Amino acid sequence: MTKHLISLAAMLALAAPLAAQEEPQGAPSPNEIVEQASAEEWIAIPAEDLLVMTLAPAADGSARKVVIQLMSAPFSQGWVENIRTLARAQWYDDIAVNRVQDNYVVQWGDPNYDNPESEGAAKPLPDGLRVVGENEYVANVIDDDLLARHRYADPYSGWTTFIEGWAVGSKQESLHSLEYQAWPVHCYGMVGVGRNYSPDTGSGAELYTVIGHAPRHLDRNIALVGRIVEGMEHLSSLPRGTGALGFYSAEETDKRTPILSIRAASDLPEGERPAFEYLSTDSETFARYANARANRRDPFFIVPAGGADICNIPVPVRRAGE
Amino acid sequence: MTKHLISLAAMLALAAPLAAQEEPQGAPSPNEIVEQASAEEWIAIPAEDLLVMTLAPAADGSARKVVIQLMSAPFSQGWVENIRTLARAQWYDDIAVNRVQDNYVVQWGDPNYDNPESEGAAKPLPDGLRVVGENEYVANVIDDDLLARHRYADPYSGWTTFIEGWAVGSKQESLHSLEYQAWPVHCYGMVGVGRNYSPDTGSGAELYTVIGHAPRHLDRNIALVGRIVEGMEHLSSLPRGTGALGFYSAEETDKRTPILSIRAASDLPEGERPAFEYLSTDSETFARYANARANRRDPFFIVPAGGADICNIPVPVRRAGE
Repeated sequence: MTKHLISLAAMLALAAPLAAQEEPQGAPSPNEIVEQASAEEWIAIPAEDLLVMTLAPAADGSARKVVIQLMSAPFSQGWVENIRTLARAQWYDDIAVNRVQDNYVVQWGDPNYDNPESEGAAKPLPDGLRVVGENEYVANVIDDDLLARHRYADPYSGWTTFIEGWAVGSKQESLHSLEYQAWPVHCYGMVGVGRNYSPDTGSGAELYTVIGHAPRHLDRNIALVGRIVEGMEHLSSLPRGTGALGFYSAEETDKRTPILSIRAASDLPEGERPAFEYLSTDSETFARYANARANRRDPFFIVPAGGADICNIPVPVRRAGE
Repeated sequence: MTKHLISLAAMLALAAPLAAQEEPQGAPSPNEIVEQASAEEWIAIPAEDLLVMTLAPAADGSARKVVIQLMSAPFSQGWVENIRTLARAQWYDDIAVNRVQDNYVVQWGDPNYDNPESEGAAKPLPDGLRVVGENEYVANVIDDDLLARHRYADPYSGWTTFIEGWAVGSKQESLHSLEYQAWPVHCYGMVGVGRNYSPDTGSGAELYTVIGHAPRHLDRNIALVGRIVEGMEHLSSLPRGTGALGFYSAEETDKRTPILSIRAASDLPEGERPAFEYLSTDSETFARYANARANRRDPFFIVPAGGADICNIPVPVRRAGE
């Protein structure tokens, strides 16, 4: 009986344990490798880098919370600071998800902003927001470990790598230099700042997340400020908008999902603060995990791919203490 | 007024027309290039290669139809034939979507198959299904145009290309050979055949589609049989399952979406047959489109990527006569 249940679940197997005597020969899966990581290989995410976004409850009354990890230095810090300012001013309270475009993005903000139907009703932005421009889409990095790093061939930017838990595209200044340019890349679940045509028009008041295949053409063209580490399914499963670019049309504004609040975890009472950690991308376990993502040798697989694109090597993140 | 509406819509601009006097300078977007294709560059999809899957109506009563284009020769034809046999036998009627795993797949089949809770209630399969194995995951192709083809560097398989409207990974037999191995790749919206551990266990009765970042590690490990050309949003927005691998758990079987029927378009009355066409991947317009996907020069963009992975160059498909 157990055999049959597992057998169904294993159809597109990820990490399905079989009864020992039936287990096909094979190496551990990527998830099994991560489970074997030592406690020291996990790095705590600071509370000020976590945002809790509370959506209105679902139709069945169940709660919908989304946790976002903000990008760490040296990337996008101007926008990250703006987002902290907006959260602390409670500016995000009572905005909404206004756009859901299939295989692209979910976007949330003030539905009255830039909207001719309700001009004048837009919320004023708080004081203290910085104007951040295209020069901050890319960071200059000097890195003594550069030559030791795992680098991945990439059709977009020559090569990609991981820096402190983030997938980045990069360009070396010269062959023997330890200096390079790096920028975060648009993988599934990454969070970015909506903007208008001019690159400095995104304040952080309008945000989006990727819900489809990595739209890497947006890299270096728009600011990434973080990623969703819990509750992604509350956004990715929202009904698609039928207006231009997946915005909800005037006939379907009732499909907008209200956002009750967005708070920095560090501003929440201690008992309500979520705690998360990520697997160090410099750890030995991460290297084994990434290798296994690129070369699946666990039982289901016949032909290892021999490579992977960086967005198919998601950085493991989990609740602390699990 | 118009300006402001467009301005919101352009935040992550794809192809937003601005009033002429306001239009920033720039090249046409990929979608604008496709709109300029000549009628001869579009290729009709045969009715026997289209499946219409009718889901139960949505909660608001609206119809949900999904159209699948089956893979053309030389790829996966054993499974494609099985799927036609299953559709003609009306075997798919009253099965269900049983699995929705975020950033991975939606999977449908007989919920009683391989299920210890309801063993014995599984539908018997029709006669005439072939057992197809791993030797058909890859096709050998001899192609006089090989050296003229657009090829894309790829971290998985060395290079990728398009053959008759399908994205494929490939491996040349030798540098000067016109013979190569090719296989379809797992992009967003591709449809494949669920299987058990043994590679020849997928009949075509259990199917899945990709709803996240391309899981290219599945290439050459599982059969791809087509892609969704309309109605993808009815699958990608379904509630995620909370059981192992995204299967709906025993407590949430009410979330399964019933499938009323799957029919080959060629078996439908003539007035009900959908008609679709795809942009020839050998056409000049497709080459311009692919180049623009890899190097966005339309107004929103600052830095062209300089490349793209093949799953970020979706083949344009549209209803015929539009």
